[in-house]
Amino acid sequence: MSSIIRSALSGSRRLYHPALTAVRAMSASGPTPPFTTLSISQPATHVTHVELHRPDKRNAMNKAFWREMVECFNQIAEDPECRAVVFSGAGKVFTSGIDLMDMASEILQPEGDDTARMAWHVRRIITKYQETFSVIEKCPKPVVVAVHGACVGAGVDLITACDIRLCSQDSWFSVKEVDIGLAADVGTLQRLPSVIGNRSLVNELALTARKMYSDEAKSCGLVSRVLPDKETVLTAAMEIAGEIAARSPVAVQGTKINLIYARDHSVAESLDYMATWNMSMLQTQDLMKSAQAAMEKKTPKDVVFSKL
Amino acid sequence: MSSIIRSALSGSRRLYHPALTAVRAMSASGPTPPFTTLSISQPATHVTHVELHRPDKRNAMNKAFWREMVECFNQIAEDPECRAVVFSGAGKVFTSGIDLMDMASEILQPEGDDTARMAWHVRRIITKYQETFSVIEKCPKPVVVAVHGACVGAGVDLITACDIRLCSQDSWFSVKEVDIGLAADVGTLQRLPSVIGNRSLVNELALTARKMYSDEAKSCGLVSRVLPDKETVLTAAMEIAGEIAARSPVAVQGTKINLIYARDHSVAESLDYMATWNMSMLQTQDLMKSAQAAMEKKTPKDVVFSKL
Amino acid sequence: MSSIIRSALSGSRRLYHPALTAVRAMSASGPTPPFTTLSISQPATHVTHVELHRPDKRNAMNKAFWREMVECFNQIAEDPECRAVVFSGAGKVFTSGIDLMDMASEILQPEGDDTARMAWHVRRIITKYQETFSVIEKCPKPVVVAVHGACVGAGVDLITACDIRLCSQDSWFSVKEVDIGLAADVGTLQRLPSVIGNRSLVNELALTARKMYSDEAKSCGLVSRVLPDKETVLTAAMEIAGEIAARSPVAVQGTKINLIYARDHSVAESLDYMATWNMSMLQTQDLMKSAQAAMEKKTPKDVVFSKL
Amino acid sequence: MSSIIRSALSGSRRLYHPALTAVRAMSASGPTPPFTTLSISQPATHVTHVELHRPDKRNAMNKAFWREMVECFNQIAEDPECRAVVFSGAGKVFTSGIDLMDMASEILQPEGDDTARMAWHVRRIITKYQETFSVIEKCPKPVVVAVHGACVGAGVDLITACDIRLCSQDSWFSVKEVDIGLAADVGTLQRLPSVIGNRSLVNELALTARKMYSDEAKSCGLVSRVLPDKETVLTAAMEIAGEIAARSPVAVQGTKINLIYARDHSVAESLDYMATWNMSMLQTQDLMKSAQAAMEKKTPKDVVFSKL
Amino acid sequence: MSSIIRSALSGSRRLYHPALTAVRAMSASGPTPPFTTLSISQPATHVTHVELHRPDKRNAMNKAFWREMVECFNQIAEDPECRAVVFSGAGKVFTSGIDLMDMASEILQPEGDDTARMAWHVRRIITKYQETFSVIEKCPKPVVVAVHGACVGAGVDLITACDIRLCSQDSWFSVKEVDIGLAADVGTLQRLPSVIGNRSLVNELALTARKMYSDEAKSCGLVSRVLPDKETVLTAAMEIAGEIAARSPVAVQGTKINLIYARDHSVAESLDYMATWNMSMLQTQDLMKSAQAAMEKKTPKDVVFSKL
Amino acid sequence: MSSIIRSALSGSRRLYHPALTAVRAMSASGPTPPFTTLSISQPATHVTHVELHRPDKRNAMNKAFWREMVECFNQIAEDPECRAVVFSGAGKVFTSGIDLMDMASEILQPEGDDTARMAWHVRRIITKYQETFSVIEKCPKPVVVAVHGACVGAGVDLITACDIRLCSQDSWFSVKEVDIGLAADVGTLQRLPSVIGNRSLVNELALTARKMYSDEAKSCGLVSRVLPDKETVLTAAMEIAGEIAARSPVAVQGTKINLIYARDHSVAESLDYMATWNMSMLQTQDLMKSAQAAMEKKTPKDVVFSKL
Repeated sequence: MSSIIRSALSGSRRLYHPALTAVRAMSASGPTPPFTTLSISQPATHVTHVELHRPDKRNAMNKAFWREMVECFNQIAEDPECRAVVFSGAGKVFTSGIDLMDMASEILQPEGDDTARMAWHVRRIITKYQETFSVIEKCPKPVVVAVHGACVGAGVDLITACDIRLCSQDSWFSVKEVDIGLAADVGTLQRLPSVIGNRSLVNELALTARKMYSDEAKSCGLVSRVLPDKETVLTAAMEIAGEIAARSPVAVQGTKINLIYARDHSVAESLDYMATWNMSMLQTQDLMKSAQAAMEKKTPKDVVFSKL
Repeated sequence: MSSIIRSALSGSRRLYHPALTAVRAMSASGPTPPFTTLSISQPATHVTHVELHRPDKRNAMNKAFWREMVECFNQIAEDPECRAVVFSGAGKVFTSGIDLMDMASEILQPEGDDTARMAWHVRRIITKYQETFSVIEKCPKPVVVAVHGACVGAGVDLITACDIRLCSQDSWFSVKEVDIGLAADVGTLQRLPSVIGNRSLVNELALTARKMYSDEAKSCGLVSRVLPDKETVLTAAMEIAGEIAARSPVAVQGTKINLIYARDHSVAESLDYMATWNMSMLQTQDLMKSAQAAMEKKTPKDVVFSKL
Repeated sequence: MSSIIRSALSGSRRLYHPALTAVRAMSASGPTPPFTTLSISQPATHVTHVELHRPDKRNAMNKAFWREMVECFNQIAEDPECRAVVFSGAGKVFTSGIDLMDMASEILQPEGDDTARMAWHVRRIITKYQETFSVIEKCPKPVVVAVHGACVGAGVDLITACDIRLCSQDSWFSVKEVDIGLAADVGTLQRLPSVIGNRSLVNELALTARKMYSDEAKSCGLVSRVLPDKETVLTAAMEIAGEIAARSPVAVQGTKINLIYARDHSVAESLDYMATWNMSMLQTQDLMKSAQAAMEKKTPKDVVFSKL
Repeated sequence: MSSIIRSALSGSRRLYHPALTAVRAMSASGPTPPFTTLSISQPATHVTHVELHRPDKRNAMNKAFWREMVECFNQIAEDPECRAVVFSGAGKVFTSGIDLMDMASEILQPEGDDTARMAWHVRRIITKYQETFSVIEKCPKPVVVAVHGACVGAGVDLITACDIRLCSQDSWFSVKEVDIGLAADVGTLQRLPSVIGNRSLVNELALTARKMYSDEAKSCGLVSRVLPDKETVLTAAMEIAGEIAARSPVAVQGTKINLIYARDHSVAESLDYMATWNMSMLQTQDLMKSAQAAMEKKTPKDVVFSKL
Repeated sequence: MSSIIRSALSGSRRLYHPALTAVRAMSASGPTPPFTTLSISQPATHVTHVELHRPDKRNAMNKAFWREMVECFNQIAEDPECRAVVFSGAGKVFTSGIDLMDMASEILQPEGDDTARMAWHVRRIITKYQETFSVIEKCPKPVVVAVHGACVGAGVDLITACDIRLCSQDSWFSVKEVDIGLAADVGTLQRLPSVIGNRSLVNELALTARKMYSDEAKSCGLVSRVLPDKETVLTAAMEIAGEIAARSPVAVQGTKINLIYARDHSVAESLDYMATWNMSMLQTQDLMKSAQAAMEKKTPKDVVFSKL
Repeated sequence: MSSIIRSALSGSRRLYHPALTAVRAMSASGPTPPFTTLSISQPATHVTHVELHRPDKRNAMNKAFWREMVECFNQIAEDPECRAVVFSGAGKVFTSGIDLMDMASEILQPEGDDTARMAWHVRRIITKYQETFSVIEKCPKPVVVAVHGACVGAGVDLITACDIRLCSQDSWFSVKEVDIGLAADVGTLQRLPSVIGNRSLVNELALTARKMYSDEAKSCGLVSRVLPDKETVLTAAMEIAGEIAARSPVAVQGTKINLIYARDHSVAESLDYMATWNMSMLQTQDLMKSAQAAMEKKTPKDVVFSKL
């Protein structure tokens, strides 16, 4: 049960408005308690909007953020009302990456004086932070990310774990880690090569930390669309999320799960997994409902699907 | 022995014309018996043309099609005369996907009343249908697919199993499955991510079923060329197939097999497999013939290679 | 110890000039002894330039080349002074591929009269030649390759093992192997599919041996930049190498190693490996130095990193 | 539909006797048409007995055998009446391995004079023969093999593809291939190491072709039981098959499929596959029937399960 | 922080007695709050004893158990005082497996009427239960399990996830799942084949659910020792745990992690991971301390290692 | 070319005696120059004997040993005269493991003061030492190891990389690494689990460093035979090596390569690799020679096979 998100949405501050699509209202006035870095809302039926909300800190990721992301997406994964997620950043930029000031103590000064024991501590932290973004991937509901302005360091780790990436014209990206003396270890090096189809560019970005602007991001495939500004990119993300949310959740979530499975396995293994997956999923009523709608020239939006 | 294809090609209706390259004649007047959905011809030496031939049904894939594809490509795999294949669709469009009417009984109403036993039945069918497109991949002769007009649902599953994809200007593609309530289970989700280098786009296409037109298909790499119309795309496909068919079949087929192997294995494993493969293949006379031709400034087309 | 490279760089013929960036001087007057096909220099601090140097033979790869590459890159891997490598070809073209004349005896006429024993011999040679390019990948220092003019056959095998690819406007590429009757067996078929994000094009190139020019190479992602001519592409490569060399070698080399690991493993495995890798690497002083520089608004170039 | 096996069982020669367990009648008087090397019977409800039947040739495997095995096990896989299989050999010994005389032409004298083309032919044959034993593994019904006397060469390939192995006291085994100049290529080298838990012994057997007798076969785990003679080993195999056949086919066949999956994948992958598999299988009525029987202190034999 | 376990151990009911090795006291009088099915104690320095404690229910696994195991082992994983774990069962038998009565509602009657949605629910439960035993494996502290009497169904799933298995003479084991109509889905089918080296026996056990007694369990390798009775098996388990706890936790836990890694990867991958792991671990002071002790003819027990 | 071994064998000190089988002479009077830790001889046709020869140091492995092993086995791999190898230890025991005194400087005191740079150094050393034993595995000639007396620490790493293991009655084994504060990192943890079929025992040995004596080594499958003493175990090893050396080297070495491949891949992948391997290997004359000998009731020893 996703009690926090449920109560947040039913609370007085952010009422449940199924038809609400006004983008203007999307950027929340503050985080949704108990979260301190995330603002959760439901701008449209079956669509959850998660906003990284530390605008005065350029949405830098502090210690609380890493923990709250896991809690938030684990709840979204269980929330039967949610069928698609939009992720964005509040304020001027998407994110400036990790909050070095807040996290320095944890990363730069591991406790103890034995190298092995400090290493053990370091590994535990990295694994925990990796999980912060892996939850996005493990959550079966598709996540559309809307980037505007800067998307730096851990921001790239974050967006490569999302399913669909859009950005505004003023966006720029930087795999910044090499500049602060480390190899990016919470997802970028692992996911970026399968996200964009230009390995020379992947290497260049990761090894030089150079900025990449929105046009290049589009042409290399990091994002699938560039929109004029923050408002339009958010609207576009909402539209895509709306399209997804209107379809059978059995079909949509099975698609996400199998797409991710296919990335990590051979085609033969993926086909076998898919066939095994659909043993039960093809017995859903959604198939009959959808097929009937299709024959009647209706769209999925005309069909009511049960919760999943 | 590929008796059916051989007899079809030597039969009265479609005579063997080694030099025939007239595209006009390419669209057959009907399926080649015993096939009821496929028309087989040999438009040029060592090139086999397989045409999906249900034009009045928009080349929808019915039960017979799934079975005939396997039979057809297994025979092509064994046919020593064939060195390259062109695949296209007859009539107005490439294909509208599965023939829901014809297949509904099998898919939508599995027999029995026990979920597990129905699931068993479902898995058997999916596995059988997956094989329909996997035979294209298992056939060591390269397959060039020429798309025109609509390429919907199972059509995308089909073309992602082909080696080279071309399309006409009026083509559009749609990963339609999510619209009828299921996750695409006969190849698209498994192969598309390694076919095009833009994962955000792959996800968007698979999760929203939106149409993608030829220009975007070219820029994202789904097709390697866009031609003006059906006739020109077929001509271009024939030319590529002709180029391939003119080269050493030992070299060509070894290349296809190893490219597919590399997709599913690490680089180290693929290099090992390749070295093992070429233990025998480098002992071919084709190598000496080709090397000699190269030194004499001739092209592979000037060399006669033995059957394979 | 990288005695040969060290002595070469400290020898009278090619003095050590840390600040030397003059591109004009880059193309050496001859190979660096004891090498006969490679010219080694150090055009800038921490940057090693390896030039394939058989200009009068269009940089064709002879028997000596295959052996010298392994020796050269094994030494570079151990050389604590080197943090980035630029690879280019001397003369008119990058390379015309293998030197058929020189190598024919080895490849075309394996000794013995028993097929299995000849096969054994063939496999040993292929494995040895595969290693020639795999050393580029195993060397943890990033390799930027600058292509100009022709890059044919084994040249494509070579560049796909490099990390960053640039080319001049007049460059063209051809996976030539199929034209001489064999499947490319020293890396192209194994690495190209993960280098560029258009599988249809990969197949077309490998199966037809057609030329691909610089513009297409850029749009498909084989290279990340096209420069006007040989001089500018080399300058650009030096700049990128300089950027890389200025950063923490702990960060840079860990990044290369983990990017290559990620190509060959699932995301989950790669994240695990990365966390294990950084157990020790995050304890480096480079991290503190870099973080401090970042907070002081300095760049990595202002930091002095210890040898690695 | 398994027409051949069905008609064989309903024919006049070998009537359907559900309760027949008399071992004496098990060794058939001849092959079951249209098979020429296999005798098929149904000694007990839901149990199929496949007997390799060329007693006067010491059950040597001729060309027909390889083909008939595939046909036979594909039919058994589809036969809803069959829930477990017993495999044994007619006459004095289990099998002397391949029939060199019958197969020499195919294996020893491949057609053609080009090494690559002969290699192509050889690979096709090996792949076909590998499939002969892989069908045993792909058939979801467990196969209990009862060995007596000699089990040589391809006989070992065969039994390692079976699920449960028993043998009589007079049995002996030999991985004979190395003695006729080849590496065993239809399964032994691939399956034996995961079949028995003593790698030193596996290597010794495969590299020296020495005989291993029943006692050592038991102690190393090649067989799970040794019985006094052919009659008792067959009886024991029938009893085990009967035990298996009495249980829910959903449970039994899911168990076999997942055990084989686990052999070839990591534990994490196997757990994921298992959970996906049981999504549908746990919804079976067999579970409720079995659980109810268990609570009523009945055994699975008291439950009637639907066909699968 | 492992607050629960810490407070349990420091509480009045079960005082911390570093030297306590009296086996008589090992079987607790009841579960350790807040646990209701597990009793936690610390019988010796750095050794934690976890006892499955539902003796009047034959230690059947109810809903609470599945949850408490995860909580318990996650805490043990974090507890710096614990270096080895002994697991056993209270009362007459080790465990009779799942508590069908308690869990029937969850497993047998999934909510909803749509097959796909029930399947989704089923998968979530299975995954959760799999995690119950996987935490034993993920916990880097070695777990020695002491079995006595019956070890049935999920009990086998549990012990195959432990590192070292001992049993008493009266023990017997049964992979019971097939008898209640399902394929064992929480670990047995996935882990048993790599636990014991006799695949024929693994298959027989899993497909027939037959009992295996202690002697066979020893000879096939399921357990590494058989002791006369419950008391002696527990003493032996404590001794082994004590031996482990006396050694460097850096060495011990690194060994467990790498042994499990090796099970799921190729030797080459495992060697690479091991080398990467030891980059930091070999820099531990434990190595110097241990080496020095070895040179002084002392044992690890004479060395004091820091917490990990 | 294996110049060192060749010259050693043809030198005055250790003449080439093809028929020499006297075990007494096997233990050499000293290392074979230029080796300082290994003594090389050829006790029988096609059999090479490698003896670890530091008897006064209990065959402890010093720095020279690690380097010489690689050189030695790389030469053996290339030596066409050698078809099988026997490995043993000179003096009282097989080996006491690493020579801590000699290696302490390298392992215990890595140079530098930056953790990351020391880690880099440590990884290089571990990788180098891993290679010392991996060369045994990469050498396609089977290696039979004859153990007597102590086999400790790195000795276990060594023997698990050999193909066939024999030991004398007085042998004992200890995975000693945990006692000196590290996880065994040069092969034991990676190979032992696939060498013996009792995972509980593997874990116990690796986590407690306890001694295992010859009888247990036999019953768990670490060795395949126990002989009375050093002389008889060496004789038995020579006999097995002789059996192997008498067979077709094409068959023998292909068998070793494919057995190792199978350990690290799925059965399907291994079958594919095997079929590809035998494309060329089945075209060997050895097959015809062997088959003919078999038909004439001769043994492989009556056949003369060409060098490989």
